[in-house]
Amino acid sequence: MTVSYADFDAIRAVAAALPSADAASAQAARAHDAQLTKPPGALGRLEDCVFHLAAWQKQAKPRLEDVHILIFAGNHGVTARGVSAFPAEVTAQMVANFRQGGAAINQLAKLHGATLSVAALDLDRPTQDFTIAPAMTDAECLAAFNVGAAAVPASADLLIAGEMGIGNTTSAAALAAALHGGNGQDWVGRGTGVAGAALAGKFAAVDAALACHGATLADPLQALRRVGGRELAAMAGAIIEARRRSIPVLLDGFVVAASAAVIARLATDGLQHCLAGHVSAEPGHRRLLAALDLVPLLDLGLRLGEGSGAAVALGILRAAVACQAGMATFAEASVSNKAP
Amino acid sequence: MTVSYADFDAIRAVAAALPSADAASAQAARAHDAQLTKPPGALGRLEDCVFHLAAWQKQAKPRLEDVHILIFAGNHGVTARGVSAFPAEVTAQMVANFRQGGAAINQLAKLHGATLSVAALDLDRPTQDFTIAPAMTDAECLAAFNVGAAAVPASADLLIAGEMGIGNTTSAAALAAALHGGNGQDWVGRGTGVAGAALAGKFAAVDAALACHGATLADPLQALRRVGGRELAAMAGAIIEARRRSIPVLLDGFVVAASAAVIARLATDGLQHCLAGHVSAEPGHRRLLAALDLVPLLDLGLRLGEGSGAAVALGILRAAVACQAGMATFAEASVSNKAP
Repeated sequence: MTVSYADFDAIRAVAAALPSADAASAQAARAHDAQLTKPPGALGRLEDCVFHLAAWQKQAKPRLEDVHILIFAGNHGVTARGVSAFPAEVTAQMVANFRQGGAAINQLAKLHGATLSVAALDLDRPTQDFTIAPAMTDAECLAAFNVGAAAVPASADLLIAGEMGIGNTTSAAALAAALHGGNGQDWVGRGTGVAGAALAGKFAAVDAALACHGATLADPLQALRRVGGRELAAMAGAIIEARRRSIPVLLDGFVVAASAAVIARLATDGLQHCLAGHVSAEPGHRRLLAALDLVPLLDLGLRLGEGSGAAVALGILRAAVACQAGMATFAEASVSNKAP
Repeated sequence: MTVSYADFDAIRAVAAALPSADAASAQAARAHDAQLTKPPGALGRLEDCVFHLAAWQKQAKPRLEDVHILIFAGNHGVTARGVSAFPAEVTAQMVANFRQGGAAINQLAKLHGATLSVAALDLDRPTQDFTIAPAMTDAECLAAFNVGAAAVPASADLLIAGEMGIGNTTSAAALAAALHGGNGQDWVGRGTGVAGAALAGKFAAVDAALACHGATLADPLQALRRVGGRELAAMAGAIIEARRRSIPVLLDGFVVAASAAVIARLATDGLQHCLAGHVSAEPGHRRLLAALDLVPLLDLGLRLGEGSGAAVALGILRAAVACQAGMATFAEASVSNKAP
């Protein structure tokens, strides 16, 4: 069965009844870990990653045989205000590049063993300029949300959601401000590389959006449709659908985090199935992860999107799972496990 | 030809004439990077890693087809002072575990595609307790150093040096203090997991070593033989030999960093061929990397040794190289590379 939400209330109803992690599987993973030939805790966060995957996959020995990267692409009316260093047609050009295998995410998916799929969301119909009008109607937002939810494979061991959309760090900054307070100065960064007057214009675009939509932004789904974008709505749909199916999610960059923040506002524990793959060079990302109580696995100054940071972090999860799956126990290897 | 150092002066002579990186190859890698379908700089430190590998491999498109992990194991007389949470026989037991494929490093080498070899250095002859005597004679230190230098494959694309040696974080702390000042409190951590009186004893062991050897520690090779260990000497030999052959090195944890610090004291630019794979949970490691002006790729709370942190970081280097090798250029993908 694929869920399709009829309206925002249907999303709220699912958010109010999200499944929990399986504590018994996590505990079994911990018990096995304690027998492996290493000092307790010596694999640090790799161990935590294994316990996380075990809890959500509901098995003591998690696996990463079926990892999916879903990229959602959308276009943004706010680009008319010059908020990006690249022209809006690059969104469609990069979708073609994904399909031809030429982007960074293609190389990373191949390297670390993930299935990549790309959904282009009405690229010829940009959202409205959200500094002066809602980016989407309720119906448009819901349609994109449903595309994201429907794209989640029922059987995945892990999901990575990524995005492409010229202008979408402006949308992410506005959404982060709507959900967590603050203004353009607090949440805007250079994105693909804006500076000077263009950067000041990006601050101003976020401030104008906050002023335009005012108190309506207090509702997270209204915030998503008013200052978000189709790819942000789709990622929010994918993240909550993964949770509904108890599939762990590895988050990518700032735009993904802003989408995830919508789910966190719908349900306070709504992101418990998520790991933060990395923190990007976009300063709002660090701030937003902190607000969401997520600690990134990597901090490498990436700022590309496309799911690329999460795909690099997939190599960390693979390392964690490989150690748990392949290491000998103290008994098997006849290694002493006691104080001298 | 394999180098074999006749005495410490021979090491000093090589350290005084180390080869430099190839700036032209790095520049060619930068020029290619600027054409790839991403905003300039958007792959952050992944780009820096590619330029580093290009510079030392002397080719614009670096490769990681032939990655070697060398593990050196040694035993330490200082374990008689109860500085470790594990008994000294675990060193030999873990060497057997490496050879049987049951340790963390075996899983990581397999996952990220590296050749693993293990050299056990006179495990039945622990070093002297360096709190009361030099750990090694000049000849013993030199022999271990030469084992490390000889173990470096002439053709490797990348070298990772790792270690196993119950008691060796005490040795590393003493060596770091000898080379960079400070005392036991400054450099000692929990290692495999000591606490309470045992941790206080570990502080005291380092302080006793510093008092015992005094001003002789000002000479980095004397510091290595007096408070180091065979595996530390071997890793120092491997690191300088890699440099002599222009092979880039990915550093692992605190003990490796202490070995590397010997080379840095012999030649101020002696670690320019090295990348820091990670910073461990051992607090001395963070301090030592800062002193060596090395910024770690990962910070995941690992504290296992065996080359494990560097092997996890190898996944990052593979991601970097895969992107550079496989991404389309703006021209190839017909993506716009200009301001709107």
